[in-house]
Amino acid sequence: MVLNAQTAPESFYERHRPLLEQALAATSERGFWTPFRESPSTSVYGEHAPEEGERAFREQLGKPFELPGHPGEGTVLPGETSPYGPALGVAYPRLTPAAAVAAAKAAAPGWRAADADVRAGVAAEILVRLNAASFEIAHAVQHTTGQAFVMAFQAGGPHAQDRGLEAVVYAWAEQKRHPHTARWSKPQRKGGDLELDKRFTPVGRGVSLLVACNTFPTWNSYPGLFASLVTGNPVVVKPHPAAVLPLAVTVRIAREVLAEAGFDPNVVVLAAETAADRGAAELAVNPDVRIIDFTGSTAFGDWLEATAGQAVVYTEKAGLNTVVLDSTDDYRGLLGNLAFSLSLYSGQMCTTPQNLLVPGSGMVTDQGVKTPAEFAEDLGAALDRLLGDPARAAGTLGAIVNDAVLQRLEDAAKLGEVAHASTAVEHPEYPDAVVRTPLLLRLDAGKDSEVYTREWFGPISFVVTTDSTAQGLELLRTTVREHGALTAAVHSTDEAVLAAAEEAALDAGVHLSENLTGGVFVNQSAAFSDFHGSAANPAASATLSDPAFVTGRFATLQSRRPVRAQQG
Amino acid sequence: MVLNAQTAPESFYERHRPLLEQALAATSERGFWTPFRESPSTSVYGEHAPEEGERAFREQLGKPFELPGHPGEGTVLPGETSPYGPALGVAYPRLTPAAAVAAAKAAAPGWRAADADVRAGVAAEILVRLNAASFEIAHAVQHTTGQAFVMAFQAGGPHAQDRGLEAVVYAWAEQKRHPHTARWSKPQRKGGDLELDKRFTPVGRGVSLLVACNTFPTWNSYPGLFASLVTGNPVVVKPHPAAVLPLAVTVRIAREVLAEAGFDPNVVVLAAETAADRGAAELAVNPDVRIIDFTGSTAFGDWLEATAGQAVVYTEKAGLNTVVLDSTDDYRGLLGNLAFSLSLYSGQMCTTPQNLLVPGSGMVTDQGVKTPAEFAEDLGAALDRLLGDPARAAGTLGAIVNDAVLQRLEDAAKLGEVAHASTAVEHPEYPDAVVRTPLLLRLDAGKDSEVYTREWFGPISFVVTTDSTAQGLELLRTTVREHGALTAAVHSTDEAVLAAAEEAALDAGVHLSENLTGGVFVNQSAAFSDFHGSAANPAASATLSDPAFVTGRFATLQSRRPVRAQQG
Repeated sequence: MVLNAQTAPESFYERHRPLLEQALAATSERGFWTPFRESPSTSVYGEHAPEEGERAFREQLGKPFELPGHPGEGTVLPGETSPYGPALGVAYPRLTPAAAVAAAKAAAPGWRAADADVRAGVAAEILVRLNAASFEIAHAVQHTTGQAFVMAFQAGGPHAQDRGLEAVVYAWAEQKRHPHTARWSKPQRKGGDLELDKRFTPVGRGVSLLVACNTFPTWNSYPGLFASLVTGNPVVVKPHPAAVLPLAVTVRIAREVLAEAGFDPNVVVLAAETAADRGAAELAVNPDVRIIDFTGSTAFGDWLEATAGQAVVYTEKAGLNTVVLDSTDDYRGLLGNLAFSLSLYSGQMCTTPQNLLVPGSGMVTDQGVKTPAEFAEDLGAALDRLLGDPARAAGTLGAIVNDAVLQRLEDAAKLGEVAHASTAVEHPEYPDAVVRTPLLLRLDAGKDSEVYTREWFGPISFVVTTDSTAQGLELLRTTVREHGALTAAVHSTDEAVLAAAEEAALDAGVHLSENLTGGVFVNQSAAFSDFHGSAANPAASATLSDPAFVTGRFATLQSRRPVRAQQG
Repeated sequence: MVLNAQTAPESFYERHRPLLEQALAATSERGFWTPFRESPSTSVYGEHAPEEGERAFREQLGKPFELPGHPGEGTVLPGETSPYGPALGVAYPRLTPAAAVAAAKAAAPGWRAADADVRAGVAAEILVRLNAASFEIAHAVQHTTGQAFVMAFQAGGPHAQDRGLEAVVYAWAEQKRHPHTARWSKPQRKGGDLELDKRFTPVGRGVSLLVACNTFPTWNSYPGLFASLVTGNPVVVKPHPAAVLPLAVTVRIAREVLAEAGFDPNVVVLAAETAADRGAAELAVNPDVRIIDFTGSTAFGDWLEATAGQAVVYTEKAGLNTVVLDSTDDYRGLLGNLAFSLSLYSGQMCTTPQNLLVPGSGMVTDQGVKTPAEFAEDLGAALDRLLGDPARAAGTLGAIVNDAVLQRLEDAAKLGEVAHASTAVEHPEYPDAVVRTPLLLRLDAGKDSEVYTREWFGPISFVVTTDSTAQGLELLRTTVREHGALTAAVHSTDEAVLAAAEEAALDAGVHLSENLTGGVFVNQSAAFSDFHGSAANPAASATLSDPAFVTGRFATLQSRRPVRAQQG
């Protein structure tokens, strides 16, 4: 690949038009579709891709990160440290929040002047090159988030790219909802028609700010990044200080493509910082920042929504992911599926179930009625089966991302009757990694509401005894409506209960998974088919992705003139 | 028409489906299209429509307004008084803000359970019946706003209905963007596909609050009312205390159709009040109010945007409508067109030009170069020509809506050199009506910025002397970006100036009209073709209508289950 060779901006659109059209069709059909293969296999990505990706990652460690032409003075060392042990030691350009916004703003006019097709083509090219860099990005994600390698590859690479492309095509299509030009001819009672020629131009709102999280630096960022880019807005990328590298690679590739297409590469700017800098709040209230995408804590997300009034704000925060357990005809499948959902990446997903609601009279299963105590014990045993082998356990659990999660795990153990203790697992490859199995507590719906109506981010879940399935559904409805959730699930063999659960989920404003006992897990959502998050409950103010995620990022402005005047 | 005869809810959709489909196509084509004829003629509306409409209006005066089954205790008399003289004396159901929201909320489940087609069909039927009531509504609009009858008919009737239908079809189409159901089949390397059946349901956000204005009670209200209804939200209609009747008629018709279709009529509730009640602020922060549409003052609009954080807020406020005058090949046409724009409804439109920017060196015209002084004099003369005949003047000017406008007119006269004084016109039909011609002042771009960067709502405009057309365009850019505008216009025979004006308007975020010298006026916007307002500048946070106007009013929620489970 020859860098910085000038390419006609239209050529990326011409090259990727079939991809964009397929992707757009997929958003309307919502079956299974993905352009970016999830298998980290040499048969897909090429014989040398794995070692080239790893080498690219290793070569960056302990050095200033190369971003040719990037603004800033000197470097900043955020202090990224792998949850698997070593410090990454990568330094990035240092620039003030004001300088980051100014650079992005200065790059805006040329980007705005390009049309939606050109911008969608550039975005698709960025995604295709990100896909080719999936191994490099996977290592960067693994060693900033603690995800196991395969998950870091899939979630940080192709799945993130899918979510990015999904946002690209929503943004592309919405800008093409209206024609570029139209002639308006109004018949008059006397004389000829009144005639006007009209022009319609989608215009981005202004500088877009992306405030990324530690645990999914690319997956949660690509939708906002690409939605803003394609709608004509430059983007300031503000990574979490502990997970800069995956986004630095992303920014590098985006800037390469932008420059090749003849645009100012500052259409995408990296605003790296240390944890002490706290630049996100300063960036968020900059009057030129007109769009904000944020993934992270409820406290900062709520602050953004209340404070950054000059911007449209898309947040994904936290909530109480809830499972209502009524009955099943596949108890073993249920336990295995749920044990995996609790264990995947040590429960450090915004989608991990926290509150497992079981009626006191027990759930009816193909292995008899299971009381909450029995269910908790059986789920604990399923966790032990899943995580008994350290190598396999490490591949599922990954590593604890930071000390806050570890501390929370220790605090939580005192809150109720422990049904499954969190135990340390020795990582066969990284002896310094902190690996812990999930903690499972038993709580009571009546007495313990203060505990289970808070989010306990990490491998912490509660088997909550309810009076009845009806009470469980009512708890789903009320707790999610008040505190939010990214996921909800139900297990029942009774269609009436499933229908009631669907009603409760609609009331609560949360997506619902039913009777997952096989190879699909509640914490997974597939781009182009599953919606992720919902503005209908407090855990988020956006859905990945739908038209609402993109329409606020631009306005369609019109000009009109009499037809006569153009003949003059 | 038999009231309250039960009709299958689908039948309205079946009846109006061709209308909805045509309307939807029109939003994409943006040529001239209207289903509701603007001529208040018996050949269109039927021989008896005028007198029946007037009688319906007259029969309501001095009585409690009939809204069968409406919640509330007793009545409230807002004290509506016609700007043409008489008090209307109509009383409306009295209910507290909390009671209004509670009634609407209780009506929500059945309305949510109907699908988008059914809701769009009900909305279309409401609009068709509103159209049939256009004469009644015209009288109600005339005698609450002071608009002349023909304008009250057109803007308050068919044009408002057009804007309502436009919102209906955007809301309808956006909910149909995704399928109701989909099957997801993911190939596995081993074994059969993973298969899920998915269901997608658009769900409204919650109770919608409509806070209407005095001057265009229906035109500015129907888009938000219908957008919220069709996306599944019940609506609390809070009219301006001085202009309740047009919306009471609207609510009556909406409730009739809802009841006929088997829905709780409280899906639309009227929250009438006196000016002293100030219920809008209390309604706006009710936690169950999740959507707000507001037209009115910048102060209250800004307060809503900053305070009603639980809701998505669509505002249309005020701004500095600006005309850049560079050159013309039809000076006489320009003057006539502009004089009419300043005079129509006494400049009491959110779209009336306020700041007319003329270079000190003058504008080049087919009648020679015109200095700002000459231009102001010529425009004053054009106003006198247009308004010389009292009957014709009254038909154009209407009446001053309230004392605040009259006071502002008097205050403004002291601010600069008067180029055209506002004079009283005797209304030939209503001797008590306060009718005034527009005030035209001369200001200087450098010295008088404090005056012309405020909005002077009413028949008050300024001929502002600039250094050059370039400075005029820069003023357009900067003042509109900072203070907002609903309209902008330019006159030039130079394509380079027009191109620069288009660039400036895109920067400012405002729609632009060019070289209007004939029968189209800057203050008019045609539904299905022209966008009205733009979230891209501070005068509004919404456009009438586009997808952004509707996508925030609902979320698409999904449920999914393994295919296997449905065979059990």
